[in-house]
Amino acid sequence: MSFAPLLNTTFLRACLGQATEHTPIWLMRQAGRYLPEYCATRAKAGSFMGLATNVDYATEVTLQPLARYPLDASILFSDILTVPDAMGLGLSFQQGEGPKFEKVVRDEAAVAELAVPDMDKLRYVFDAVTSIRRALNGRVPLIGFSGSPWTLACYMVEGGGSQDYRHVKTLMYARPDLMHRVLAINADAVAQYLNAQIDAGAQAVMVFDSWGGVLADGAFQEFSLAYTARVLTQLKRHGTDGAVVPRVVFTKGGGQWLPEMMPLACDVLGLDWTTHLGRARAVLADALAHPATDGQAVRPTALQGNIDPNVLFAPPEAVRAQARAVLDSFGTPHIDAARPGVTHIFNLGHGISQFTPPEHVEHLVDEVHRHSAQMRR
Amino acid sequence: MSFAPLLNTTFLRACLGQATEHTPIWLMRQAGRYLPEYCATRAKAGSFMGLATNVDYATEVTLQPLARYPLDASILFSDILTVPDAMGLGLSFQQGEGPKFEKVVRDEAAVAELAVPDMDKLRYVFDAVTSIRRALNGRVPLIGFSGSPWTLACYMVEGGGSQDYRHVKTLMYARPDLMHRVLAINADAVAQYLNAQIDAGAQAVMVFDSWGGVLADGAFQEFSLAYTARVLTQLKRHGTDGAVVPRVVFTKGGGQWLPEMMPLACDVLGLDWTTHLGRARAVLADALAHPATDGQAVRPTALQGNIDPNVLFAPPEAVRAQARAVLDSFGTPHIDAARPGVTHIFNLGHGISQFTPPEHVEHLVDEVHRHSAQMRR
Repeated sequence: MSFAPLLNTTFLRACLGQATEHTPIWLMRQAGRYLPEYCATRAKAGSFMGLATNVDYATEVTLQPLARYPLDASILFSDILTVPDAMGLGLSFQQGEGPKFEKVVRDEAAVAELAVPDMDKLRYVFDAVTSIRRALNGRVPLIGFSGSPWTLACYMVEGGGSQDYRHVKTLMYARPDLMHRVLAINADAVAQYLNAQIDAGAQAVMVFDSWGGVLADGAFQEFSLAYTARVLTQLKRHGTDGAVVPRVVFTKGGGQWLPEMMPLACDVLGLDWTTHLGRARAVLADALAHPATDGQAVRPTALQGNIDPNVLFAPPEAVRAQARAVLDSFGTPHIDAARPGVTHIFNLGHGISQFTPPEHVEHLVDEVHRHSAQMRR
Repeated sequence: MSFAPLLNTTFLRACLGQATEHTPIWLMRQAGRYLPEYCATRAKAGSFMGLATNVDYATEVTLQPLARYPLDASILFSDILTVPDAMGLGLSFQQGEGPKFEKVVRDEAAVAELAVPDMDKLRYVFDAVTSIRRALNGRVPLIGFSGSPWTLACYMVEGGGSQDYRHVKTLMYARPDLMHRVLAINADAVAQYLNAQIDAGAQAVMVFDSWGGVLADGAFQEFSLAYTARVLTQLKRHGTDGAVVPRVVFTKGGGQWLPEMMPLACDVLGLDWTTHLGRARAVLADALAHPATDGQAVRPTALQGNIDPNVLFAPPEAVRAQARAVLDSFGTPHIDAARPGVTHIFNLGHGISQFTPPEHVEHLVDEVHRHSAQMRR
């Protein structure tokens, strides 16, 4: 497969700890319901999964935010639950209710039936990756993604979203052996899934550990972090075009475990808004100054995040002030082109809300570019 | 007012950094729906607020868990939303839906109407405190409580529970001046409310900052922590019997901000299950070894928490193993009777679930007492 040369390399360079002219920005869920054009395409598609499984629609909505805002990256339009769906659990989306699985995985028999799915069942995702990459035509890089093994397990055991994670934690505390089996299968499935996205044209990959933060200290390390690590060690480092494919890991609510994430074979760690970026940067800088001697080549060197998406409900001037505050909290940008440093990729600390006024996003993107360029002068 | 002498002083001593024979344990929401006898009383009362506003019923349910388990403290049966209700916002509980306010506080006019309520409207709470203290007859101490200024504001602005805190954060980011006015009123109301509970017989007080953890770094310090501090500096230090009344502050999701909580004029900091108790203890030990020279007498010297309440769904042996793991994570208990140290009060990291099997709680309480006594030998 060959694709057009990449014109905006800011995001990929920042992922690898390289100095950039400004701080790159993209937004989790940037193709979403806050955009009227997204809602129009979704209406044509009939349903969320109708949108995600149709290559043309998925391409169309992925590109929509780029037509409005000078974002520095795009992300595949899909859902984190495609993998358990391919495992045969029967995913559906009830109107206004979030995802639901027909089958839940709560006992030995259900766990015994689980297996890494045939990746052919996820062909529609890989086709979308290739289609989007072509449509982007080198404008910005395309990020592929997956849910983390633990986050997928939450949905598989709960059968949908949850407030208290009662079923998945019951299984974890009562039958840790079964939970480990689920997680091992999930990890290997996620690794194959992300590698297939890389082969299809993804220029970076992100693991969303959306529910890692609901775990207790100790349980997080054992049931989430270990399996994210298992995914990462299986990932291809290069795309079909030979370029390095950076890896992003985002554990919502995981700020306290940052030191324990440092051995992960990823390039970028995502943070939510509860973590001070400057303090997190110090953890990465320290690791960079004292490299581990275990021979592992890939280490976190960039932070991604972390403005509260609710900031976007405030008037433009407040949005701009909060954007500056996040940039300033990271501190003086890394500007030495001769060596890698700790870099910052601006993002939200959570997916953008459907109630966001689209014009406020314009102010956010503009202020991040403007202020971060000024900080480098 | 005079009350029977206190027989079990373990909890109060641990609050003040004094050595105890075992680690005291009580459970957030220990009088709750997981107990069939609670459900029976609630059925008689007709509604949740019917239960909370009736002195006899509130006394009855507060004592129910003590009849089952050798807990080391009791906590007033009430709701954190009594204060905004007394402000005239009209609290009600829809069946299975959580709290709802008739009036929401989202604009300048609504904020202008707010004031510290007449404490006479909360007489039913203070009467319950006195009634419960009498009924306890010195068996264990009685903890009074309130929501934090920020947590109350969340409900007042959202009008009930929320998934995204969109309205309260919009007000905060768009009109910080209005939010500061709400929080100042809340703080002064909470201080009066807790002082009246102390006068009525509460032997310790706890501030529940249940939603502090949804704030961004920076916003937490400005909109939650500062107002919890404002409450604490107004609190009475002694009860009518002359005994010191320890203060507990619990910010769910606040583990990362522990160092910034150290200047709080409280005795105990609560932690949820995401924070490693041993690491938190080191923060408190360091502060104890290097006392601030600002003349403030009250400083955090104890940690309260932090087992995941979902552990209680596992079989008894797993419950016991997890209880030991939490005790062990705190480390060797403070045993020097001659000087204060950092102490541990065992609790859940969140209120107990209504689905908890009551007999599992027996195993938890027993194992905490047994293992923590053994750790001291």
